[in-house]
Amino acid sequence: MYHRALSGFRDFYPPETALRNHIIDTWRTVAGRYGFEEYDGPPLESLDLYTEKSGQEIVEQLYAFEDKGGRAVALRPEMTPTLARMVAARAESLKKPIRWFSVPQLFRYERKQRGRLREHYQLNVDVIGERSYLADAEVIAVAVDILRALGLADSDFCVRISDRNVIRALLINAGVEEGQLECAYAAVDKIEREKAKNLTEMMVKAGIDERTATEVLRIAQLKGLADVAEAVEKAGQDSEVIGELDSCVDALFSMGMGGVVTVDCSVIRGLAYYTGVVFEIFDSQRSMRAICGGGRYDGLLESLGGVDLPGVGFGMGDVVLSELLKDRGLEVERVGLDVFTIAITPDDQAEILSISHTLRDLGLRVEYPLKQQALGKQLRLADARGARIAVIVGPDERSENKVLVKNLKSGSEQRVHKSQLTREFFAHDG
Amino acid sequence: MYHRALSGFRDFYPPETALRNHIIDTWRTVAGRYGFEEYDGPPLESLDLYTEKSGQEIVEQLYAFEDKGGRAVALRPEMTPTLARMVAARAESLKKPIRWFSVPQLFRYERKQRGRLREHYQLNVDVIGERSYLADAEVIAVAVDILRALGLADSDFCVRISDRNVIRALLINAGVEEGQLECAYAAVDKIEREKAKNLTEMMVKAGIDERTATEVLRIAQLKGLADVAEAVEKAGQDSEVIGELDSCVDALFSMGMGGVVTVDCSVIRGLAYYTGVVFEIFDSQRSMRAICGGGRYDGLLESLGGVDLPGVGFGMGDVVLSELLKDRGLEVERVGLDVFTIAITPDDQAEILSISHTLRDLGLRVEYPLKQQALGKQLRLADARGARIAVIVGPDERSENKVLVKNLKSGSEQRVHKSQLTREFFAHDG
Repeated sequence: MYHRALSGFRDFYPPETALRNHIIDTWRTVAGRYGFEEYDGPPLESLDLYTEKSGQEIVEQLYAFEDKGGRAVALRPEMTPTLARMVAARAESLKKPIRWFSVPQLFRYERKQRGRLREHYQLNVDVIGERSYLADAEVIAVAVDILRALGLADSDFCVRISDRNVIRALLINAGVEEGQLECAYAAVDKIEREKAKNLTEMMVKAGIDERTATEVLRIAQLKGLADVAEAVEKAGQDSEVIGELDSCVDALFSMGMGGVVTVDCSVIRGLAYYTGVVFEIFDSQRSMRAICGGGRYDGLLESLGGVDLPGVGFGMGDVVLSELLKDRGLEVERVGLDVFTIAITPDDQAEILSISHTLRDLGLRVEYPLKQQALGKQLRLADARGARIAVIVGPDERSENKVLVKNLKSGSEQRVHKSQLTREFFAHDG
Repeated sequence: MYHRALSGFRDFYPPETALRNHIIDTWRTVAGRYGFEEYDGPPLESLDLYTEKSGQEIVEQLYAFEDKGGRAVALRPEMTPTLARMVAARAESLKKPIRWFSVPQLFRYERKQRGRLREHYQLNVDVIGERSYLADAEVIAVAVDILRALGLADSDFCVRISDRNVIRALLINAGVEEGQLECAYAAVDKIEREKAKNLTEMMVKAGIDERTATEVLRIAQLKGLADVAEAVEKAGQDSEVIGELDSCVDALFSMGMGGVVTVDCSVIRGLAYYTGVVFEIFDSQRSMRAICGGGRYDGLLESLGGVDLPGVGFGMGDVVLSELLKDRGLEVERVGLDVFTIAITPDDQAEILSISHTLRDLGLRVEYPLKQQALGKQLRLADARGARIAVIVGPDERSENKVLVKNLKSGSEQRVHKSQLTREFFAHDG
């Protein structure tokens, strides 16, 4: 008889819904300031949309099944395949660059539990059809502005940025062969979580000699644009190799965001499809998983949707963000009622309904008790519902077309004519 | 290679997303004015949450499968079981009456296609823990106010309201036995879609004699509170039988909504769980399916969640509503950019980034070209993006800390100091 939510799925009671909506509203507001337009797709898609090109980990964690029509289907584990599909279907008519965002709920069945969720909401922001570093800077700026709009200080988070082309050039110059690049990337990716000894061992097993492996780890620890530029120069590489990263960081400085950005060669992002600038945002203490991650994926749309358009984008989930906001005391306050209307006698009820409706038409949040109760009990209910003001009508008031307005915070009262109950009245006398 | 959305599932490109969000925003805004608080649950639930108590039609149309952990699960086809589960889990601590709403996406696999969707968004508004007719009136008022807030005129729609207790009393009085009630309800429900002859045949097969069957059809055609009240009186029933319906309609008149409400005894609603007032809203021409339907379900929460609380609520889907708004020319206008910023030379780019960011911080919707282009081309892009104003910076402007502001609608231009670019400036000079 007694049911519960599935393990890994969240029930959103009103306080949790308020926080979730606050995050999603902020995503929408800030993306809108950058001119991004919202799209959405179905939470259920053909299975092969994911099995063809998604990473192995994603395919293993799919909620996949056969529908009643015999179709192999899956709950969406990520948004990019849907994006690629939708862009491909209208590749000709959509004006480029396409500046789109979406707020899908995503689903992954992770076997190893330890409190990990199996669903989350994720903001996806993408610029499609533009190769310039300005597109990279643009999406990073959206992410930074979202965190600022949520009330986080610049000191609360850090954007770590890198460029796969730079790392690749440095690794090749250090002696890593093309066929060993994937292993070297994996080592770079793990530099902050694994011991150097283990990473070296891993690389040696893949045929990278020990001296080169040591060099890979040194490259992974390069930080700051100046040091990276120096390494590129020492490697005898053209300065153009670092041009995109350099210009992107420059643009972020022009936008007043230089202070939160760090060039960090250990940032490579797990996904195989990134082709240029990559970035991630962590809380300053790095006590949580990434707030956000993304980068440039110039070959992905062709492989997923058959349309050769460059792209850059990121995903930002609601779970880490919610934790961070709670941790910093930046949760939303409950929005209480503006007005609670009260009938003294049953005969005053119709008047209360009429007044309530007038006030709601003004856009005010208004409630009244759904049954006849004593005045004291009604006032306590008004308080419990967070109302600012009580509007009370008894036979005396009614005979004079008046109401008694009681400010529930200050306790002050005044008797006013009904015609005085305007939006301005409640804005000032609240 | 080329993928499509599953049959019955919608892709939301930006114009469709804008309309969907407009509907959902209006649902939220109006529900908020009535003090309703938003909740949500998982789109995936345990299968038995639905198989135990949902109607047969719903169970047959479930997207059900076994997850990787061997659990029998289903995509939610309706919200009420989740609501019952969540209320039951906190029945003690939640303050009554519970005034909640939700905006779930729901899923049903309907075999017979003919353009029917397999997913839709549905507003659910419920008052739980209050038996009074005021609760019935309250949820109906929310539905009416939503349609008004969306721009529909009172003449565009009609609320048809009835009460199962009234119909039941009339049917019993006409000679229908307890065991035949379900069949009689079915006949009442179909009075407008089926021939009287067929309905009579159906009832006779269920053991209802022909004279009683004729009487059932007459009852089903009763319209207007006065006629229904007269029928109740003629049937020798206590006037209390019609008290709840009467008071509810009265309350809606007090709220200024009497004009859109019609008492109509053919309204019974298909779902077996309704126990009192039932209602539905149709477009005036009745050219579409119901916009909204609901009613009182005092035994449902006990049967679903094991908590004995009365309830009343409704569901309103986005599909019929979207069609109606399009039909009435009430679609949303595209929100264009406020400002498009333009650099004349590459050297002006950094200044443009800085200004754009300042304007975005003011809450304005701002874009700039993501690559260097000729002025004419940039202005055309600004136009294509629906921008109201262009802010242009060349070497001359930059040397004086000024910008050229061009109103793209009127064509007027002015050169102003950067410090003048305030929110007010753009509000007035737009």
